Amino acid sequence: MIKRAIILSTGDELTTGRVVDTNSNYLAGKLAEIGIDTAAVITVGDVPERLEWAWRTAIAMGDAVISTGGIGPTADDLTTETVARIAGVELRRDQPTVDRIRQLFAAMNRVMPENNLKQALFPEGATIVPNPIGTAPGFRIPIAIEGHRAEVIVLPGVPREMKPMMEETVIPWLVANRGVDTIFAVRVFQTFGISESGLDEEVAGLIRPDEGRVAFRASFPQISLRVTVEGRPGEAERKLEELCGRVRAKISQWIYAEGDATMEEVVGRLLTERGLKLAIAESCTGGLIGHRLTNVPGSSRYFIADLVTYSNEAKMALLGVSERTLKEHGAVSEECVSEMAEGARARAGADVAIATSGIAGPEGGSPGRPVGTVCIALAAADQNVSRRYQLRGTRDWVKLWTSQIGLDWIRRYVLGLPLSESGVLRR
Amino acid sequence: MIKRAIILSTGDELTTGRVVDTNSNYLAGKLAEIGIDTAAVITVGDVPERLEWAWRTAIAMGDAVISTGGIGPTADDLTTETVARIAGVELRRDQPTVDRIRQLFAAMNRVMPENNLKQALFPEGATIVPNPIGTAPGFRIPIAIEGHRAEVIVLPGVPREMKPMMEETVIPWLVANRGVDTIFAVRVFQTFGISESGLDEEVAGLIRPDEGRVAFRASFPQISLRVTVEGRPGEAERKLEELCGRVRAKISQWIYAEGDATMEEVVGRLLTERGLKLAIAESCTGGLIGHRLTNVPGSSRYFIADLVTYSNEAKMALLGVSERTLKEHGAVSEECVSEMAEGARARAGADVAIATSGIAGPEGGSPGRPVGTVCIALAAADQNVSRRYQLRGTRDWVKLWTSQIGLDWIRRYVLGLPLSESGVLRR
Repeated sequence: MIKRAIILSTGDELTTGRVVDTNSNYLAGKLAEIGIDTAAVITVGDVPERLEWAWRTAIAMGDAVISTGGIGPTADDLTTETVARIAGVELRRDQPTVDRIRQLFAAMNRVMPENNLKQALFPEGATIVPNPIGTAPGFRIPIAIEGHRAEVIVLPGVPREMKPMMEETVIPWLVANRGVDTIFAVRVFQTFGISESGLDEEVAGLIRPDEGRVAFRASFPQISLRVTVEGRPGEAERKLEELCGRVRAKISQWIYAEGDATMEEVVGRLLTERGLKLAIAESCTGGLIGHRLTNVPGSSRYFIADLVTYSNEAKMALLGVSERTLKEHGAVSEECVSEMAEGARARAGADVAIATSGIAGPEGGSPGRPVGTVCIALAAADQNVSRRYQLRGTRDWVKLWTSQIGLDWIRRYVLGLPLSESGVLRR
Repeated sequence: MIKRAIILSTGDELTTGRVVDTNSNYLAGKLAEIGIDTAAVITVGDVPERLEWAWRTAIAMGDAVISTGGIGPTADDLTTETVARIAGVELRRDQPTVDRIRQLFAAMNRVMPENNLKQALFPEGATIVPNPIGTAPGFRIPIAIEGHRAEVIVLPGVPREMKPMMEETVIPWLVANRGVDTIFAVRVFQTFGISESGLDEEVAGLIRPDEGRVAFRASFPQISLRVTVEGRPGEAERKLEELCGRVRAKISQWIYAEGDATMEEVVGRLLTERGLKLAIAESCTGGLIGHRLTNVPGSSRYFIADLVTYSNEAKMALLGVSERTLKEHGAVSEECVSEMAEGARARAGADVAIATSGIAGPEGGSPGRPVGTVCIALAAADQNVSRRYQLRGTRDWVKLWTSQIGLDWIRRYVLGLPLSESGVLRR
């Protein structure tokens, strides 16, 4: 009956700040999805007495202890022997694992250093957790300390080995041993144009705590809202659908996707569906919009070109912006971005184009055009719309936010939504 | 006499996997730099009995406990009251903090919710750690449990508030209370063209453990090597200089910077020094090179334009690539990138230009040109060099690696170093 877990992360690289512990984040998220509560995450370096303390503490506190790291071939990999000592059992060599390690080295035409066979040692009574990718399998063993029994699960620290082991073997086993017959139904909404606290206020009171849970996550430029319902299979999904209906009715104007899609993926899907070709003209964003668009596989189907024109001369020569516009209105003006967008559209032969120009900072601001002044335009066969924004924040932030508004303009153009409502943070 | 620290991270967002705990990584790194050993990192959610356990455990184990999170205005922010209860003291309102919070809200023209005054409560006897950015200051207070005394340091969880507080107030205080008269002299080398394990092999045996420490960090595309010497002021710096001389003599061909500079910053500094103007032509990198170049403040001094031409038509229309080249050699060819680079240089009026074209994947590969095939060219008044690479990895990775080689080509061109040695991983 596993309800409460402790996550144990080991390695000097974690306690000296050389590596960010993303494993614990991954594990905590996976456990939350199946309704297992992470009571604590404990991280220690490769020091025998600290490992001993961490293991004893974790086993005393949790129904399950999930550990990553410390099962490699070298002398500072101490997890397996620490667990065996606490369990009070001997280490035993597993012949199938020995054979597999030898085969892996043979397949790479490499001589196997003898220390690799350390990875074939397991505490007596342990069940092996197969590693489909690397040399070191994990294992699972129940250990009792002072009458409290915990299921100990030991995995490697390398994320690309640990994750498939977790997903293929450990999670199904945990689900089968959770001792509850409920599941978690989850839906994520991606939003733009409202702050995290604004979203919080909008949906406050919409879902009672006994109906489901609402959580927010801001990983700019993505601000997402997650609705989770725990219940019996079938019931949970039905309840989730009802709650999501309430959420949609309240915040639909800010939702640009359901699920994990990014803004550039949504834009790509829409352009592909409509068979539209896109061009970009960037100044202050410096290539970021093109970079984001081309992070999406298959973007060559709709993305033709991005003319990043950082100097005034380049804006004239490469986009046909008029000297008069630059003299009378400056490069950061609605007039200039209009001409940039139309220039990009015409020269690339695109159906629609957007353009950006602004002052990303920290230098270059003036009283009339402070840092964060940004102009955006969209040009299509039947329209040319431009608008000025006053953004705040650092250079990175101004670039990122401008790119998000630009992409949102394309989305809104394709969907026939008003451009004027994009990117204005409600609060 | 602070030698051993415990890092305490609190918040439900950490134990449910919604947020990666980068604070602990930052803190562990900063402590390591000043020679304080992180014995453990303990993470718990906003649950009173778990916070109580975590705090008691941490205070019993460390000379210092550094905590992040749980000092905001809402009901689930429990850190301050937990610490006061364990210390056995009352909470006291700090009037200067009250005034400052009121001023901050007044300056934003916002009504202050009363719960914000919770952030002006501190345990009796605590020393306030100023927060130059946000509303919630931190504090420091010594607490003894069963005869063991620890210095408790409480900081907010928001990284952009926590970091300046750590650097401006906490670190100087920790250094003054370390109880040792040695300092740490540190030098970082940024490298490109060699793997982390390759670097490890190169410098193996170069520095004895009693002379100093060598550490590696790979945060692609940056692979850095850090040399640290502990010693008395003056002596440590002299020893560091000697050790760095040995490192330079061994791996100079892969070093592109000393210190924290990125490749785009190095390129920007070199172009500024020589008064050279740069243009880019990108295909597979999609704008990433322009984006990276324009992340550097002041890049408008040397960066003119970036023509991202994703389609063959755009390569012809916007860069003057010949139809014949595209037909005979294809868009991913040394011939095509040569014409792209020269086209960008001529049309933007630049001194030097680089061009990229390749197959970033996951689609688009063929037997002769598999995913990861990338061509790069550099055009200047006196030369036009191109080369084909076979890279490995995902779409993101191919884009990133290609952008790094392109930037390194510019650096090598300006410095008169051979382009042919760039980007070939030694191992």
